[in-house]
Amino acid sequence: MEIIKDISGIKDRLSNEKKAGHNIGLVPTMGYLHEGHLNLIKKAVENNDVVVVSIFVNPTQFGPEEDYEEYPRDLDRDARLAKKTGVDYIFSPEPDEMYFADHSTFVQVEELTDRLCGAFREGHFRGVATVVSKLFNIIMPDKAYFGQKDFQQFVILKRMVRDLNIPVAMERIPTVREEDGLAVSSRNKYLSERGRETAAVLYKSLKKARSLIKKGENDPEKIKNKIEAMIQKHDLTEIEYIEIVDPETLKSREEIRDKVVIALAVYVEETRLIDNIYLDREEIPHA
Amino acid sequence: MEIIKDISGIKDRLSNEKKAGHNIGLVPTMGYLHEGHLNLIKKAVENNDVVVVSIFVNPTQFGPEEDYEEYPRDLDRDARLAKKTGVDYIFSPEPDEMYFADHSTFVQVEELTDRLCGAFREGHFRGVATVVSKLFNIIMPDKAYFGQKDFQQFVILKRMVRDLNIPVAMERIPTVREEDGLAVSSRNKYLSERGRETAAVLYKSLKKARSLIKKGENDPEKIKNKIEAMIQKHDLTEIEYIEIVDPETLKSREEIRDKVVIALAVYVEETRLIDNIYLDREEIPHA
Repeated sequence: MEIIKDISGIKDRLSNEKKAGHNIGLVPTMGYLHEGHLNLIKKAVENNDVVVVSIFVNPTQFGPEEDYEEYPRDLDRDARLAKKTGVDYIFSPEPDEMYFADHSTFVQVEELTDRLCGAFREGHFRGVATVVSKLFNIIMPDKAYFGQKDFQQFVILKRMVRDLNIPVAMERIPTVREEDGLAVSSRNKYLSERGRETAAVLYKSLKKARSLIKKGENDPEKIKNKIEAMIQKHDLTEIEYIEIVDPETLKSREEIRDKVVIALAVYVEETRLIDNIYLDREEIPHA
Repeated sequence: MEIIKDISGIKDRLSNEKKAGHNIGLVPTMGYLHEGHLNLIKKAVENNDVVVVSIFVNPTQFGPEEDYEEYPRDLDRDARLAKKTGVDYIFSPEPDEMYFADHSTFVQVEELTDRLCGAFREGHFRGVATVVSKLFNIIMPDKAYFGQKDFQQFVILKRMVRDLNIPVAMERIPTVREEDGLAVSSRNKYLSERGRETAAVLYKSLKKARSLIKKGENDPEKIKNKIEAMIQKHDLTEIEYIEIVDPETLKSREEIRDKVVIALAVYVEETRLIDNIYLDREEIPHA
């Protein structure tokens, strides 16, 4: 495995790999790899000749009040984990390798980015779409792997790929969870012991919602109220949003039908956590 | 020469060309080819194994009050001219092949797009950057050819290519002019005979500016006033802007030095015409 910091370096390596007929899988990350990332990497290793993991804490997707500076970084540890999991190249540029001082081009996906997390994190998804476009242009992967945990991100990037004709297959991989159901995330490390115990309620409430729907509840308000009540019982929590949406448009559903995503963002202590579940057509009883 | 209307068709052809080791030159156009386009095509033919001309009147770059509907189109004529000039493929998609009904992704180059024409054509360069990104992703050319006449467009697209790491070499080709100096343009056909004669003053005034600068004039205001006076003598004209700018930032120059672009947009009758000249370091006397 090689760790490469410059754009021309990774392009050279991958140009040779392509000449050798190898197809390329990309796992874009902000590093501090956890089981969720490793699961993406495993899928990439299974399905591609060459796997690139990008590790880049992307400044343009953090708001001014957000945790860009304190976001956890540990390249040595990431490199060990990546190597063990079968990665061929880590691409870990510095910010000034990725952005000129007068950088001025942004990729904007409209509407989809105003909903859910986008309503609370202005400019976040513009930063994500921009950096992922750049990574796609640099790496030119055949397939790219993203976690279901960041569901809105996946929907937005998939729309971007469609709208801009970017030649990459987008793979959405199920969320990896801790034993108590908490979605694994680099930000879980910010939690105190008590916060960490509390955080399990997010997924518990989503499971409860799933079971209510399976029993025939089709009123989104009732389901959201149930989730809200479960979470609010815990004094360390503050709900940002709970939404039940169409998985493609991300618009709120008036009624539970077809397929839906239930998504939420909740502060536990100072830490903003997100989670979601996807209910397929088969899981929703017909009216 | 083949005329191809669908994205998958052109991708298939070009994938085979690339496998055969051929490099690809792209000339993006809105069709109604004139000597300016043919000059771009000639340069592309000289320097590439395979030349693609895209012909697409891009709806997203026209404002609601602009001439999208009446913009001249003549694919048969274009095909004859392109074939004669050595083009291998014309890619001429319909609008619904390029844009889904729920298209929502746009490429925005900030600041550069607010200046010159951008100040008067809101959203124009966003549409241009978006469609050119799409064309680059579909065609994946080694080189792309643009005319100097649309100088701001070139500067914006070059910035986009740099900022998003798009793997294409951007070629800027000098403006082709009629005998009386008028820059050739598909929109010249909108002019009446008298309008057409009047339009020659645009380039005459730019040439006058060049000669004043060569004689040592370094005050942009004086030069702009001279251009303005020459154009205003003609009653069919209405000046939109006359600017003297830095060729990379497009910011107004306080003083003529280093290198500058003098750019203007003028209505002649109902038709908006643009032109510009580039003055290199060598053409500007040192203070």
